[in-house]
Amino acid sequence: MQEKAIILLSGGVDSVTGAYWAVKERGWEAHALSLNYGHRATIELSCASEIASRVCASYKSLDLSVLKEVLKSPLIDMDIIPEENDREGDSYYVVPVRNIIFLSIATAYAESIGAKHVVIGNHAEDAKGFPDCRPEAMEAMQKVVEVASEKGKAPTLWSPWLRSSKAEIIRKGLELGVPYEHTYSCYVDGIACGVCEACEYRYNAFIEAGTVDPIPYAVTPRVVKRNE
Amino acid sequence: MQEKAIILLSGGVDSVTGAYWAVKERGWEAHALSLNYGHRATIELSCASEIASRVCASYKSLDLSVLKEVLKSPLIDMDIIPEENDREGDSYYVVPVRNIIFLSIATAYAESIGAKHVVIGNHAEDAKGFPDCRPEAMEAMQKVVEVASEKGKAPTLWSPWLRSSKAEIIRKGLELGVPYEHTYSCYVDGIACGVCEACEYRYNAFIEAGTVDPIPYAVTPRVVKRNE
Repeated sequence: MQEKAIILLSGGVDSVTGAYWAVKERGWEAHALSLNYGHRATIELSCASEIASRVCASYKSLDLSVLKEVLKSPLIDMDIIPEENDREGDSYYVVPVRNIIFLSIATAYAESIGAKHVVIGNHAEDAKGFPDCRPEAMEAMQKVVEVASEKGKAPTLWSPWLRSSKAEIIRKGLELGVPYEHTYSCYVDGIACGVCEACEYRYNAFIEAGTVDPIPYAVTPRVVKRNE
Repeated sequence: MQEKAIILLSGGVDSVTGAYWAVKERGWEAHALSLNYGHRATIELSCASEIASRVCASYKSLDLSVLKEVLKSPLIDMDIIPEENDREGDSYYVVPVRNIIFLSIATAYAESIGAKHVVIGNHAEDAKGFPDCRPEAMEAMQKVVEVASEKGKAPTLWSPWLRSSKAEIIRKGLELGVPYEHTYSCYVDGIACGVCEACEYRYNAFIEAGTVDPIPYAVTPRVVKRNE
């Protein structure tokens, strides 16, 4: 019997490529889960839904925007999106332990439907600014899932891009046939702004992967040389 | 300055005693958080609110009942509450990794308001049926919080009853002045049924602690000798 996997699907490049990886490369029956905690880009969710209709066996989108009441983050609170991340060290966009909240809910879902796998799309470059995206966080969370679950029920947590750059993810996704026109990365809803950190990063990763980002931008992002 | 603590407050005996412990014994400024995932006993939440108004600096109750869409549990799904837990091994009432979901949300809240502590009320007897209540699960989760948080922000997770029986918690609570008439433990809403596992267990713990449970019951629970 085909093994089931829960895919944490935001509708961004990384999680969408993770869904294709789970289905096309691992052969799993994918059950997509979008968790919306009140961040802006609802268009990302329509991308998630479109992708799920193409490669997943089911799609659920949970509105967890009540979490806004206890979370402080610019992605949730701010009226102005800064153009650049000018803080030292950790990213300005950190939602505290967000991936841990997401992985724990996905684990509960996995155990409820007998899925053996959970897939999350964090990648090596995320790990620089978001501590919950680091390999150590994934390893520690796997341990939690094992000790906190009923015997034999703990899913394996997969983070296929944990050691990949965004350009590497895109190259892999192009091999797997990912329709990147149905992904969204901007912090602003509607049409990708082209000036925020996420737009610039995404646009340049497509260039680095040797192709052109297929989505439209309000303003064409500036091209940044690596390590500039 | 007084240190802040997030108290996961269900309105049951254990979490309420945890709130009193945090405030009266540790001297923390307590911020109570009730997470409702669609389980029945909404009266438990009014107990939580009452307790918070007495000893906590703030109270938030988040409706996470959308989680019902991905969680399978008798506490959420069932129309009939069985009188006894007649399954072998793990409790019939397990909500997969519930405490891990709760601790991750409480951790995010703690980091958002600069709280150094998170308090959860799980106890030694819970650990028999609920794997996410075991000491190993708490230790593993502490490790996750440390590696997944921004530097210096990780709260300490406290589980003051981790090695206590329910009777020991009640004895401690009576010393601390806990008003147990404002706590609720039954799986059925309205008035405690007196026949479910939770009622019987609670009622007998008060006897074992040398006192009488102050809440009314629809049917007086049967008295069970320890190790019967």
